Amino acid sequence: MEKNNLAPAPEHKFSFGLWTVGNRGRDPFGDAVRPTMSPVELVQLLGEVGAWGVNFHDNDLVPIDAAPGERDQIVGEFRKACEENGIVVPMATVNLFFDPVFKDGAFTSNDPDVRAYSLQKTMGAMDLGAEFGAETFVLWGGREGTETDACRRPDEAVKRFREAINYLCDYNKAQGYGYRFALEAKPNEPRADIYFPTTGSYLAFIETLESPEMVGVNPEVAHEHMPGLNMTHAVAQAWEMGKLFHIDLNDQTPGRYDQDLRFGSANPLAAFWLVKFLEDVGYSGPRHFDAHAYRTEDYEGVKDFAKGCMRTYLILKEKAERWNEHPQIREILADIDSKNEAVPMMKHGKEAAAELMSSPFDRKEIAARGLRYERLDQLTMDILLGAYN
Amino acid sequence: MEKNNLAPAPEHKFSFGLWTVGNRGRDPFGDAVRPTMSPVELVQLLGEVGAWGVNFHDNDLVPIDAAPGERDQIVGEFRKACEENGIVVPMATVNLFFDPVFKDGAFTSNDPDVRAYSLQKTMGAMDLGAEFGAETFVLWGGREGTETDACRRPDEAVKRFREAINYLCDYNKAQGYGYRFALEAKPNEPRADIYFPTTGSYLAFIETLESPEMVGVNPEVAHEHMPGLNMTHAVAQAWEMGKLFHIDLNDQTPGRYDQDLRFGSANPLAAFWLVKFLEDVGYSGPRHFDAHAYRTEDYEGVKDFAKGCMRTYLILKEKAERWNEHPQIREILADIDSKNEAVPMMKHGKEAAAELMSSPFDRKEIAARGLRYERLDQLTMDILLGAYN
Amino acid sequence: MEKNNLAPAPEHKFSFGLWTVGNRGRDPFGDAVRPTMSPVELVQLLGEVGAWGVNFHDNDLVPIDAAPGERDQIVGEFRKACEENGIVVPMATVNLFFDPVFKDGAFTSNDPDVRAYSLQKTMGAMDLGAEFGAETFVLWGGREGTETDACRRPDEAVKRFREAINYLCDYNKAQGYGYRFALEAKPNEPRADIYFPTTGSYLAFIETLESPEMVGVNPEVAHEHMPGLNMTHAVAQAWEMGKLFHIDLNDQTPGRYDQDLRFGSANPLAAFWLVKFLEDVGYSGPRHFDAHAYRTEDYEGVKDFAKGCMRTYLILKEKAERWNEHPQIREILADIDSKNEAVPMMKHGKEAAAELMSSPFDRKEIAARGLRYERLDQLTMDILLGAYN
Amino acid sequence: MEKNNLAPAPEHKFSFGLWTVGNRGRDPFGDAVRPTMSPVELVQLLGEVGAWGVNFHDNDLVPIDAAPGERDQIVGEFRKACEENGIVVPMATVNLFFDPVFKDGAFTSNDPDVRAYSLQKTMGAMDLGAEFGAETFVLWGGREGTETDACRRPDEAVKRFREAINYLCDYNKAQGYGYRFALEAKPNEPRADIYFPTTGSYLAFIETLESPEMVGVNPEVAHEHMPGLNMTHAVAQAWEMGKLFHIDLNDQTPGRYDQDLRFGSANPLAAFWLVKFLEDVGYSGPRHFDAHAYRTEDYEGVKDFAKGCMRTYLILKEKAERWNEHPQIREILADIDSKNEAVPMMKHGKEAAAELMSSPFDRKEIAARGLRYERLDQLTMDILLGAYN
Repeated sequence: MEKNNLAPAPEHKFSFGLWTVGNRGRDPFGDAVRPTMSPVELVQLLGEVGAWGVNFHDNDLVPIDAAPGERDQIVGEFRKACEENGIVVPMATVNLFFDPVFKDGAFTSNDPDVRAYSLQKTMGAMDLGAEFGAETFVLWGGREGTETDACRRPDEAVKRFREAINYLCDYNKAQGYGYRFALEAKPNEPRADIYFPTTGSYLAFIETLESPEMVGVNPEVAHEHMPGLNMTHAVAQAWEMGKLFHIDLNDQTPGRYDQDLRFGSANPLAAFWLVKFLEDVGYSGPRHFDAHAYRTEDYEGVKDFAKGCMRTYLILKEKAERWNEHPQIREILADIDSKNEAVPMMKHGKEAAAELMSSPFDRKEIAARGLRYERLDQLTMDILLGAYN
Repeated sequence: MEKNNLAPAPEHKFSFGLWTVGNRGRDPFGDAVRPTMSPVELVQLLGEVGAWGVNFHDNDLVPIDAAPGERDQIVGEFRKACEENGIVVPMATVNLFFDPVFKDGAFTSNDPDVRAYSLQKTMGAMDLGAEFGAETFVLWGGREGTETDACRRPDEAVKRFREAINYLCDYNKAQGYGYRFALEAKPNEPRADIYFPTTGSYLAFIETLESPEMVGVNPEVAHEHMPGLNMTHAVAQAWEMGKLFHIDLNDQTPGRYDQDLRFGSANPLAAFWLVKFLEDVGYSGPRHFDAHAYRTEDYEGVKDFAKGCMRTYLILKEKAERWNEHPQIREILADIDSKNEAVPMMKHGKEAAAELMSSPFDRKEIAARGLRYERLDQLTMDILLGAYN
Repeated sequence: MEKNNLAPAPEHKFSFGLWTVGNRGRDPFGDAVRPTMSPVELVQLLGEVGAWGVNFHDNDLVPIDAAPGERDQIVGEFRKACEENGIVVPMATVNLFFDPVFKDGAFTSNDPDVRAYSLQKTMGAMDLGAEFGAETFVLWGGREGTETDACRRPDEAVKRFREAINYLCDYNKAQGYGYRFALEAKPNEPRADIYFPTTGSYLAFIETLESPEMVGVNPEVAHEHMPGLNMTHAVAQAWEMGKLFHIDLNDQTPGRYDQDLRFGSANPLAAFWLVKFLEDVGYSGPRHFDAHAYRTEDYEGVKDFAKGCMRTYLILKEKAERWNEHPQIREILADIDSKNEAVPMMKHGKEAAAELMSSPFDRKEIAARGLRYERLDQLTMDILLGAYN
Repeated sequence: MEKNNLAPAPEHKFSFGLWTVGNRGRDPFGDAVRPTMSPVELVQLLGEVGAWGVNFHDNDLVPIDAAPGERDQIVGEFRKACEENGIVVPMATVNLFFDPVFKDGAFTSNDPDVRAYSLQKTMGAMDLGAEFGAETFVLWGGREGTETDACRRPDEAVKRFREAINYLCDYNKAQGYGYRFALEAKPNEPRADIYFPTTGSYLAFIETLESPEMVGVNPEVAHEHMPGLNMTHAVAQAWEMGKLFHIDLNDQTPGRYDQDLRFGSANPLAAFWLVKFLEDVGYSGPRHFDAHAYRTEDYEGVKDFAKGCMRTYLILKEKAERWNEHPQIREILADIDSKNEAVPMMKHGKEAAAELMSSPFDRKEIAARGLRYERLDQLTMDILLGAYN
């Protein structure tokens, strides 16, 4: 890299959840490996590594059974820590998965008490986020799913989920919070099958809401990679629909448990295309890293992890610029563009259709054209690997 | 099974594509193992096994370079065969993947000639289907994708695809064909990543069309199972949105190549939930089997395959009825329902919200309730396996 | 089912780990949902549901920091409970994954202290199991793996693992315990990549040990299904090599997190082939269910879960018998066998080779034979689903 | 990269199969997109791009029904082309999958005629390879598998496969060919489940042969990645057992159809660890690229593809050297090594065991050590991406 621009800065909008740098390494087969750090200490850590923002679930900050006074004290101390460390709160969310009460879902639970409590808890989390000026409210329905479809018809789950989101949109309006909701899809884990398993499913669902303009998506790299999907394609569809309200950056090998690895560390090529897309289209929202350090690490390692997420993003951003300026790549793309430049929209109507139906096409000649995509991809590989000779 | 209702009948609306029973067993590593059967012979075979309908891609019936006279003769003979065998044509589709001209996509190709030719070919296929009274027109964009995202921005692909579908909707209207289009998603194969990889992605896309009411989806078991998704959940979302225009039944183990196995033969439990949903909601469209016989089979084996698809569907349909009537299952479901029966929609508005915010919930008590889903699922297993003692 | 033989009995050798019925439902995203039950209570539960055996990791029974006196008291009470409930201890194992000390592996850790401690802990677990007459000692190397291959060369890991197993075999001999070790493979989770990811890898490794005859494998359904492999094929290879020392029965959908579902409940067809193989070859070891109840369950649900595992096994066992006796199936298999009955081993040697080289084969004629596998598989489906008309 | 060593040279031992650069782009959903090139033309192409070796299946070179005279002419012309282009033939193999006769397997077929013919065909392929001095004979049993386990007991398949390999080893000895056989595993496609699905399975099988020293493995990146396994771990186990006789380099995203992509182009990080391992241990065999160009390409694109495979290997090889020399990485590795340097093999025997059993270990202190693997991995990422500032 000729440029030396790999230090994170506020304009990059790098944010981390409290639960990411605060992750203690508990997993299904093992205990926590790191001591608990308080929210205040975590914000200090984020300030130290150069992050711009911090996000939280309600209970990352305020324990689920905290008394009102305790809550207010925590909020005050946390606000002070954010100010001292120059850290903003761009996004808030609600934990509807950890407590046993959510064992069969939150908004889609068969138990109307659980559904009502889930709304109550979410409204409280919205109140909390609003106190910190959060503009985006993420909803990940981690427990909205099944191990057996015997328990509930899946279309009933869709209806219940819709009722909940409509309710929360109204609350958002009534309170004047101005949140944009961002729905986060995941195919499985911790449920065998989670409803709305992909970003596409949520994009479809949003159009059926009473206030669709208030709701978008929060695609996560790991959640699209788990079922082997192309994250950049999911992001592009959301972007094209005006629905890319937030993004969760991390990494994941397809076809396995949710890994939440350091951004770019499982497949830097996939990360490259994602960064390139975000930068090319001018996405201006937070770059949120929803990942955590390996269990082998102490808190020095957690800092290495956090710095690595941001560093890799910035390396790939520089590479995206280089890609856009690369003469051979530009030549191939110009060749593609030249074919399309003067192409008008296909004319509709009987006459135009008749004309199209009788147009001759030389299939064999068209098919014989080599498209030079192997070259294009190898040039990409050269740029990715920094092999410029 | 006490009942003896396992013979296929017209009211079951079982259909097969010409390409399914006519599949010759060619695969990436091997040659065809069965001789070619003509469309007329295939319709006879379908009549023999008791199918109700036959579907086709344009070139399943009419070779891509057929002269007009040849086309008309084929159409005539095929119509006669359909009539003689009591077979209808409920659906037609277009092959936009086999010819080398589509090597980089059809509607999303970088080459405007390919895009225009793809429209022309699709319009011809619509004309052909309309001659047979097909009411559904399926579009599977098998080549609409990439091996490298260097070649095109994925949001550009979305726009191109939209232009094509809008065009075809207009043609449908102009010609008075009355088709309902059904878009069929697939995550990969034959491209590394296909755009609109899941049914959810297409449901989202449809809302952005000029005539969304004319367009729905054609979910396929194998295509949702490939990325490990729950087919019944995808179908339920489509159904709830009024978009389940067609369905492709087959089977597939997750995380591998497109297998197109006999319906129910990879995982009869997943097939059971799907059949149960279709029957419970009263889906009235075709039950289309998009599958093919193993390469080990001759045409007797192809008949076994086709009969097996229908038989398994009918077995599972009977089991679904039995499930709905099972006393222990009814008791558990009634318990779930009793909690929900009198539950009104949550009241919106400041006052109602305030009331909800101050409502007490005993999380621990709620969480402690055992939900009996293991029992429910084991009862399902008993019914599935016919273990009634 | 005509027969009524679905009650578990000692001759079925159904065993459960303490950690299975004692699983409290903690997962990566949620807290425990069930209260702790003591080992004594768990043995009572197992007696109540009709199990034959109980297995344990050292720390399932004795806490990791228990004082010697505490240990002895626990052992005594547990032995009494086993006797009172007619439960045996066929297998013991060691927990080398939960404690943070194992965060980078046990036998393959980069830290020689961890490696030595892992041996010590395993020897202690062997002592404990031997007190209960356990004949099989299972080793699952859950932490033996990596998130980054930067930390250690993978062949070094193989060597370290070998040194450990050789050591333990010697200890086994020296103590006269008479254990047979059973190595259990898993591809990932909780590590990104676990060494020896499949049963095949361990079968290969065993041949390189100093006492290969003392070591076999413990294949687990979920662990082979996670990477989409055929469990029955893995078991068959182990069996054919004389290495099927133990087996872990549960269920799992391919390509996702470790689900440990009730046996047969994800895919009863795969479970059928496995049960059929075990019964056909006369496998006489424990049928160990390494699974746990859904988080939606209380301990009544845990019993439903445990009973369901055994019931499904017995249902499938009856179906396997029925399959073997089915006239149409027998006819097809007899046809296959008739081709093979009189076939001698190919003769080796120059002359025989020359004769073979000049033998004529009519490829086209051979290839044209239909093999009736669709029929065979549909007959299997009929038997599985209990559709006998 | 400071160094300019990215031109392929004979010492790199880069080889391609005739079927790789000669791949015409046929796939399950589409026709060939490139014209046929003769073996002679393909060798010229390989000479042009700088390859060292060419490999072939028998029928890549000699059509399956060629008359003896035709065969000899083809062989003569091909030999001449190899000589003229400075290309050697390091490996030969046999096609036991394309012809319909193999539809239910070759060595494991239920039909003894097919099994005998498969041996005959393989012996002919061995004769052919020997004429060109091939030292390695690869066996990929692409059809050795099932769609339904109804057709054959899987342990019977193992026995049949063993009989075949034993026979071929004897033929190899009798003819004095001096081949080393390399068995190539694949989990599925074109069969639903292929026997010996992973490299580990074959390593285990080899030990049961009459001449195990003559048989090793040919791991393929795509085949290990399909089920989501770590290729480098598989290669390391084979290497450590002295069984890495050959290697197939390409690329593949986990959990989907067999992609055979340009080496390193799906995940350059995984490719890096593989190249690093091969170079670190001094693997001296061929680097065989078993991949093919995208269907979008003409033969210029095929050359780009072939050059890209070799270029990426050489880029990664340079990076491996740089990794080994990197001061910060060396410091961390030295710290790991320092712990292990003076560690003797654990002493066996009663006394040593007793001593170990009574040794104190401070679990908490050991567990608290941060291992700096996040840093190590990010340094790897920096080297991979060429971000050295």
